[in-house]
Amino acid sequence: MRSLISESFRAIQNEICSGLEAADGGAKFTSDTWERPGGGGGDSRVIQNGNLLEKGGVNFSEVFGELPPIVAKEFAVTSTSFFATGVSLVLHPYSPKVPIVHMNIRYFEVPGDGLAWFGGGIDLTPIYLDREDAKNFHTVLKTTCDKHHADYYQRFKKWADDYFFIKHRGETRGIGGIFFDRLSDGKDLPLNEQFSFVRDVGKAFLPAYLPIAEKHRNESFSEQEKQWQLIRRGRYVEFNLVYDRGTHFGLHTSGRIESILMSLPQFASWQYNHQPTPGSPEWDTIEALKTTHHWVD
Amino acid sequence: MRSLISESFRAIQNEICSGLEAADGGAKFTSDTWERPGGGGGDSRVIQNGNLLEKGGVNFSEVFGELPPIVAKEFAVTSTSFFATGVSLVLHPYSPKVPIVHMNIRYFEVPGDGLAWFGGGIDLTPIYLDREDAKNFHTVLKTTCDKHHADYYQRFKKWADDYFFIKHRGETRGIGGIFFDRLSDGKDLPLNEQFSFVRDVGKAFLPAYLPIAEKHRNESFSEQEKQWQLIRRGRYVEFNLVYDRGTHFGLHTSGRIESILMSLPQFASWQYNHQPTPGSPEWDTIEALKTTHHWVD
Repeated sequence: MRSLISESFRAIQNEICSGLEAADGGAKFTSDTWERPGGGGGDSRVIQNGNLLEKGGVNFSEVFGELPPIVAKEFAVTSTSFFATGVSLVLHPYSPKVPIVHMNIRYFEVPGDGLAWFGGGIDLTPIYLDREDAKNFHTVLKTTCDKHHADYYQRFKKWADDYFFIKHRGETRGIGGIFFDRLSDGKDLPLNEQFSFVRDVGKAFLPAYLPIAEKHRNESFSEQEKQWQLIRRGRYVEFNLVYDRGTHFGLHTSGRIESILMSLPQFASWQYNHQPTPGSPEWDTIEALKTTHHWVD
Repeated sequence: MRSLISESFRAIQNEICSGLEAADGGAKFTSDTWERPGGGGGDSRVIQNGNLLEKGGVNFSEVFGELPPIVAKEFAVTSTSFFATGVSLVLHPYSPKVPIVHMNIRYFEVPGDGLAWFGGGIDLTPIYLDREDAKNFHTVLKTTCDKHHADYYQRFKKWADDYFFIKHRGETRGIGGIFFDRLSDGKDLPLNEQFSFVRDVGKAFLPAYLPIAEKHRNESFSEQEKQWQLIRRGRYVEFNLVYDRGTHFGLHTSGRIESILMSLPQFASWQYNHQPTPGSPEWDTIEALKTTHHWVD
């Protein structure tokens, strides 16, 4: 089962990298394979300074060994051996008109506790909110969810709204998407059906994101709009370093730092007490992130 | 006692801002006074786009009220009412030849537990290591410590080395300085002598930092050196958001976000797997941060 899952995840990584290279039309992914001293390793694919993408990473990893006590405690498991495999991507486009995007699918096993579960999600972080994009993005995700379970979209959409929340700012990271973790066997779907679901989530990434990137990539933008992008990226950094569980898991399991922090943008900015002008597109975006929205019916 | 301490901290804030404005010669501090809904407030002084300082903040705050359970647990106290006052500063100079610097002095009281203590410290984060600077900086701190207790410098220098450590990078944030927290009454100095010590730490800031800033501010630098500064600032962001207890305390006590995150630089950068060329000044700096040094005898 383990090797079946990781093979399938590798295939999804390949498919996404090919699709993104074709869309970018400039840069290519470089591949860094690495080994984890405690067991396992990965393949970090990074693209930089492309036509569409300023910085992006699509990581595959398959790690196992001793689970650090701090993580065992967080997961409420007693056994200290684990196996984990996953694909994780973050893309930071060059243009402020094209949203940042994140996708992750993962499988986690604690054999000693007889536990195994899948998790994953896709979410979009626009620099400038485009409500039509939000609707289209969520529609692809809902279609993917609906194929598997009538409740999934509603449930995992809410999970994303709750998870991708920058508590100290009182705003979400972006317009959300779906997020799920540790679906229990039995109460939810059997493990092999969860597997089928996360594969579909992985495959939904390109159709969910590329049409939005294509729609905006050639729009012009000003210096001031680029500056706003750097500020929005700063908020992205805040979320990832302060709240993101995947990042903390990586930092505490002696993960490969460069692969974990590949999610951070090439450039970001913090300005003291930056307040968008009421009524401006920047203001509209931030205001929208302060409440929950139903992007599709 | 409380008002005596906060008055003295305000005076130190004023003294430092005046000294920094005179040194900068361009920008002036603006003052933002704010109130904390749960009790107290502060005065955030910010300088931006100056001749010497790209972004800097010197905050005073005096807050009190209900201690959030998460903080009470971290501090191992049972009472949930607290009083805290302090001055905290971070300066991000424009030139990569001038180090980032941080200073903090604070007083914390949990009246229900009969607890009160001071804490503080000063530490330097060079973009490019200059060993003479490190020696001079530590000499000022040692002189300040030696006036109060023969053990203080050695003890608080080690505390800074341990505290300002970016665990996931295996390197310190900078060349350290001194750091101390929760000196216990009796075992250490009586509270009024601790007070006298933190005042001296506050007053040591300008003589410790300004000669270093003056020495380097007019040195020329290249685009590549500026880029290295942005990368080093990225590491600074990593430390503050992932490890810094003051930042976490602020985020969890509903502190004023803009004042807490004023420590973050105007611009920062993350590049995938950036590795300085062996033998280069960038490499020399990072290598030095991987081990502990005795900068003064």
